[in-house]
Amino acid sequence: QWTLLDWRPKRPDMLADAFSFGRIVQDGLVFRQNFPIRSYEIGADQTASIETLMNHLQETALNHVRSAGLLGDGFGATPEMSKRNLIWVVTKMQVLVERYPSWGDIVNVETWVGPSGKNGMFRDWHVRDFNSGQTILRATSVWVMMNKLTRRLSKMPEEVRAEIGPYFMERSAILEEDSAKLPKLGQKRDTNDAARYVQKGLTPRWGDLDVNQHVNNVKYIGWILESAPISILEKHELAGMTLEYRRECGRDSVLQSLTTVSSVECAENFPEVSIQCEHLLQLESGEDIVKARTVWRPKRPFSDGNMGSISAESA
Amino acid sequence: QWTLLDWRPKRPDMLADAFSFGRIVQDGLVFRQNFPIRSYEIGADQTASIETLMNHLQETALNHVRSAGLLGDGFGATPEMSKRNLIWVVTKMQVLVERYPSWGDIVNVETWVGPSGKNGMFRDWHVRDFNSGQTILRATSVWVMMNKLTRRLSKMPEEVRAEIGPYFMERSAILEEDSAKLPKLGQKRDTNDAARYVQKGLTPRWGDLDVNQHVNNVKYIGWILESAPISILEKHELAGMTLEYRRECGRDSVLQSLTTVSSVECAENFPEVSIQCEHLLQLESGEDIVKARTVWRPKRPFSDGNMGSISAESA
Repeated sequence: QWTLLDWRPKRPDMLADAFSFGRIVQDGLVFRQNFPIRSYEIGADQTASIETLMNHLQETALNHVRSAGLLGDGFGATPEMSKRNLIWVVTKMQVLVERYPSWGDIVNVETWVGPSGKNGMFRDWHVRDFNSGQTILRATSVWVMMNKLTRRLSKMPEEVRAEIGPYFMERSAILEEDSAKLPKLGQKRDTNDAARYVQKGLTPRWGDLDVNQHVNNVKYIGWILESAPISILEKHELAGMTLEYRRECGRDSVLQSLTTVSSVECAENFPEVSIQCEHLLQLESGEDIVKARTVWRPKRPFSDGNMGSISAESA
Repeated sequence: QWTLLDWRPKRPDMLADAFSFGRIVQDGLVFRQNFPIRSYEIGADQTASIETLMNHLQETALNHVRSAGLLGDGFGATPEMSKRNLIWVVTKMQVLVERYPSWGDIVNVETWVGPSGKNGMFRDWHVRDFNSGQTILRATSVWVMMNKLTRRLSKMPEEVRAEIGPYFMERSAILEEDSAKLPKLGQKRDTNDAARYVQKGLTPRWGDLDVNQHVNNVKYIGWILESAPISILEKHELAGMTLEYRRECGRDSVLQSLTTVSSVECAENFPEVSIQCEHLLQLESGEDIVKARTVWRPKRPFSDGNMGSISAESA
């Protein structure tokens, strides 16, 4: 879950300047924030993990909502939404990673929102290297409204549209969206054509829970990737990911993560020979939590001279 | 493992200013850096996790070494150490947390080093709230030198002492160090006097590995806390922690985490009624990786009005 607090800055001016909490640019429609990559955000590959990059997306989405003055008493729940007990829920997310940043790099994140169908909102991100301007990742997501008491989806009330409509843009971070249907991947699937990996007994740890005691959204990605064979993780890097969110997952859930792997010559958006995986995260009782597709490309040699020399460790 | 790269900043002046990468203060002996707490760094308690705070300690240690110009080709391995294949290894760490910061708070970390015995170095930290100046945590650690080829501990060569000695201070972050011996806590311990919890089958995930394919130091803490009963995690907060590092842990290790819980009326440094735990993280084959003691105090009610209203989540 991407969960939000009613957070109001105590000293907005000073903070924004001194610590680059980000700001609204481009006619008030795009929110921009920089993040230095920390030593603890890089992994065995010497680059930032996908989880780190997803965390930056979450943080900028929250700060955008706050900066726009749209924050009611929840994540992007405007005053008119709050009156009606409406909250935003994410239904889909697609991420394309062009390159992974290294320790000391600064990533520049831009995010904006727009209409999705009659009742939804999209939120897109474009992340670049602050210094070179090179694209790091592009992402898009779809959000709809849910009544938090009945847990049913809701149409977008006109009063809400009046609040958020002025912030809508038509710009798309990803021109060719992954609209291919994610296949059913349950227990009964015929898997003759693909290797299949299962990781059972996944349970949230205390540290995986957010303030609502729901599992954090980024944690799902960790679980999904965990069922992929380590040989893929060692020799490939995640190039793209499409996630469909089906239902919530609380602290007492026990999950399993299923992955099927297939080799593809040339997937959409990915010119290189790559590996494609289909993933299903479900409760052990059978309900689907998240369906996903990932595409992996061969790891590139370290492109950057300044990361070449590694020779120390600590106990 | 706290593992370091040979990282040299490409544009030190601009970066330090624009993104508060930290700087050396106080006669060149103390390194200071600020961190805004991000939305993804807080957990179910609405405050930063201990792992987040430990990450800040790691990042400042690295940046201090770099800023002091002491970085050879590894973590604090000075040129004279590099010549001799010596690296730093941490043997002990003690952390006392006074309060946990919230999303949007800015923490100010100070770190410095000094002598520890004849051949060791201590590194201390004092973390404060940037705005109020209130202490968040204090920490101390002890480091010794190891030959990275033989994996044996080494005396501190005079040439190395000449390099790092000028940076030594005598100031202590923690006046009353936890010098009580950590008890043996293996399989054979008589546990009639205390509840005992075991978590078996812990294995590193790909994302837990650092650039040397060792398990990240902060990960150990997660594993240690994981074997504590959830009732403690729910109703108490970690007030202090003492860790003794015994040996490295690689990617193929299978570990178990043992915890015994006892109630204490008044532990050193902790005036409140609190819970004390003894922990042992060991390979399933029996070798000790980390021994630890943790002290827990009852959770405080949310002290801060601006975190009071939570009402939204996302799917």
